[in-house]
Amino acid sequence: MEIDSERLREDIETNAQFGELDVDEGRGRTVLTGTEADRDAREYLVRRMEASGLDVRIDAVGNIAGRWVPEGVDPDAAAVAAGSHLDSVPYGGIFDGPLGVYAALEAVRSIQESDMELSRPLEVVSFTEEEGTRFDIGLLGSSVATGLRDVDSALQLEDEDGLTLGECLESIGFHGDGRLPVEEWDAWLEVHVEQGTILEEAGDAVGVVDAIAGLTNAHVYIEGEANHAGATPMPERTDALAAASEFVLAVERSAQTVVEATSPTAVGTVGKLDVRPNAKNVIAGEVALMIDVRDVEYDSIQTIMGETRDTLDELERTRDVSTALDWYRDQEPSKMSERCVETAIAAADEAGLSWQKMHSAALHDTAYLADVTDTVLLFAPSEDGISHNPLEWTNWEDCTAVTQVLAGTMVDLAQQ
Amino acid sequence: MEIDSERLREDIETNAQFGELDVDEGRGRTVLTGTEADRDAREYLVRRMEASGLDVRIDAVGNIAGRWVPEGVDPDAAAVAAGSHLDSVPYGGIFDGPLGVYAALEAVRSIQESDMELSRPLEVVSFTEEEGTRFDIGLLGSSVATGLRDVDSALQLEDEDGLTLGECLESIGFHGDGRLPVEEWDAWLEVHVEQGTILEEAGDAVGVVDAIAGLTNAHVYIEGEANHAGATPMPERTDALAAASEFVLAVERSAQTVVEATSPTAVGTVGKLDVRPNAKNVIAGEVALMIDVRDVEYDSIQTIMGETRDTLDELERTRDVSTALDWYRDQEPSKMSERCVETAIAAADEAGLSWQKMHSAALHDTAYLADVTDTVLLFAPSEDGISHNPLEWTNWEDCTAVTQVLAGTMVDLAQQ
Repeated sequence: MEIDSERLREDIETNAQFGELDVDEGRGRTVLTGTEADRDAREYLVRRMEASGLDVRIDAVGNIAGRWVPEGVDPDAAAVAAGSHLDSVPYGGIFDGPLGVYAALEAVRSIQESDMELSRPLEVVSFTEEEGTRFDIGLLGSSVATGLRDVDSALQLEDEDGLTLGECLESIGFHGDGRLPVEEWDAWLEVHVEQGTILEEAGDAVGVVDAIAGLTNAHVYIEGEANHAGATPMPERTDALAAASEFVLAVERSAQTVVEATSPTAVGTVGKLDVRPNAKNVIAGEVALMIDVRDVEYDSIQTIMGETRDTLDELERTRDVSTALDWYRDQEPSKMSERCVETAIAAADEAGLSWQKMHSAALHDTAYLADVTDTVLLFAPSEDGISHNPLEWTNWEDCTAVTQVLAGTMVDLAQQ
Repeated sequence: MEIDSERLREDIETNAQFGELDVDEGRGRTVLTGTEADRDAREYLVRRMEASGLDVRIDAVGNIAGRWVPEGVDPDAAAVAAGSHLDSVPYGGIFDGPLGVYAALEAVRSIQESDMELSRPLEVVSFTEEEGTRFDIGLLGSSVATGLRDVDSALQLEDEDGLTLGECLESIGFHGDGRLPVEEWDAWLEVHVEQGTILEEAGDAVGVVDAIAGLTNAHVYIEGEANHAGATPMPERTDALAAASEFVLAVERSAQTVVEATSPTAVGTVGKLDVRPNAKNVIAGEVALMIDVRDVEYDSIQTIMGETRDTLDELERTRDVSTALDWYRDQEPSKMSERCVETAIAAADEAGLSWQKMHSAALHDTAYLADVTDTVLLFAPSEDGISHNPLEWTNWEDCTAVTQVLAGTMVDLAQQ
């Protein structure tokens, strides 16, 4: 079984053209659900799946699955599925997501070309809106596929302009039927870039992830009083942006404290912040921001979120602002299956590749899949750990190596 | 000498019809330089000036001056001039500007009808593009008249569609010759609405402004490293938004310190702030913000801007961000002349009106005029301090009161 590095690279580089950015350094893309770039990326994937004889299905929320039933295999046997996502953050990189989708497709192609005998069908999958950029909810496609969110409520989600997910998918021709029956899969495997420097620093080719950190998101609203920046004396101000600035720093400090005291893997971030009216000569009347807190220890998340609430209470007292917190997401940490982790390690050993067990600080669709089937997540090294950025990079040899481990794991699981 | 309240009101209300808005509450207008509304407003003013025997002159940038030489007065004596502007911001109010122009005309008319003997000519003036809405440069007409900007470069300024000021003035028939010789005036007086609540709260009829605050604006850029909010450990981050938050608080603190230590009128504001990429799961890579600092003491502005630079240097050291500051506007405070201020106070006392000395936080044409002649700025109360808005309102009695003070001041100065 031999991975065709060139074929894998061609697919990833072709996909990188959809939503491509004009940047001085690196290679970036912006692929938001329901845009032209998303349609082009999806159509290319479907063409490549069909070219390899996969039977393509699109579900109601646009999740794409290509199924291959090897000759002589019971078509009703539980499949071994692998994949990731094609959407990106704004100004994102070309590997985050697409590597997992095209590694899965390349694994299937290399298995097709080998003389391996399987007992199970294989599936290549791309989940919709993993990044949550357009509809504000990450892992959206896998949340529907795993039954956490029902199809209708997902389709009615609205973007900033009031367009629904259903309308967006309809407009690009990817609003299919039902939901992928992921709970029927024998196993789910995802390849992803590490988005950190652990593998690079250790010189390991592959990370075998045994746990995914939990993740919490909340919207925070801080309301002050918009007023003329020239005519309003300092003591009479209720400046929503100054209050929000204290909040941003409090979140950072709280996460740093948890890191030093109990759990080095804890992180807390305010990455999105919008000011109203956002004019140079008007004191900010309103700030809307989002907080993102993660750790493999659920206690850390609860500590940081508790301090977040305390900070808002304090700002109400000290700055006379009104605040609101909408804690809309609270995903506990997920454990991968031991069977899949051990199979992946054996596959890495067989391929002669150095590996290490690790956890994932970032959330992936696999976190939801872990609730309904056996899973493992495989990491490829990220240059300098940079991700969600046009400078995100993974060497082509590393892409090939992780695809080799994926293919070996799929074969082993599909033979059981 | 008696102000004809009805005549003043009729002029302001007639002028309010040019560019009138259809709004549910209040009375608004949009009068941008070179539009039909602007032409109508200018033509009406010229007719009203001529009806009172004023000799009208239009300069190259459309500034309008109507001169009255009382019988027996040396026509070459330095004039006492008064006025304001007729243009508005989009969706502006009906008093901001026109009150000052028609108060000046009404003052001249009431002086004409009295038996006061003068030694100087009087002029009524309307300056072009005070708001800077169409050509992006406020106080445009007075900057040319005072020689800060030369006529030709002003005429070549382009609006968003590439039309020049010269073309716009030509199209409405208000592209005259030369520039008003404002430095030859004995004094310049401007009536304006306060756009704040100080007079209303104190119950005073008139504000005698002895200083106009200086104004500084700068763009600030803070560059960190965009990275995954889940996978980047806290100690490895270069978070542009956390750095920007420290900056916002440092500006606020610096202004507060100046307020407490030396100058209660100092203000410093960050009202505009934009994050990139501005996604909840990406550490901010870049923040662009704007700083607005004002005071009647130029030292305060320099102190706050100096601390602003220091803060950026410190952030480069402590947070490893890159920063840049583009200090693109630096308008020094303007002092009104003591002679004019004292004359206005005497006129208010004589009319039995309550007054207070105050400063203007907002800029007016008088800020430029103060560089070339003796000036005073008179404020009328603004209901709830609202301005640049159809809800802007000043009671008709207050319009009359401030016009009474203006007329008294003009007479006194023109008798010297």
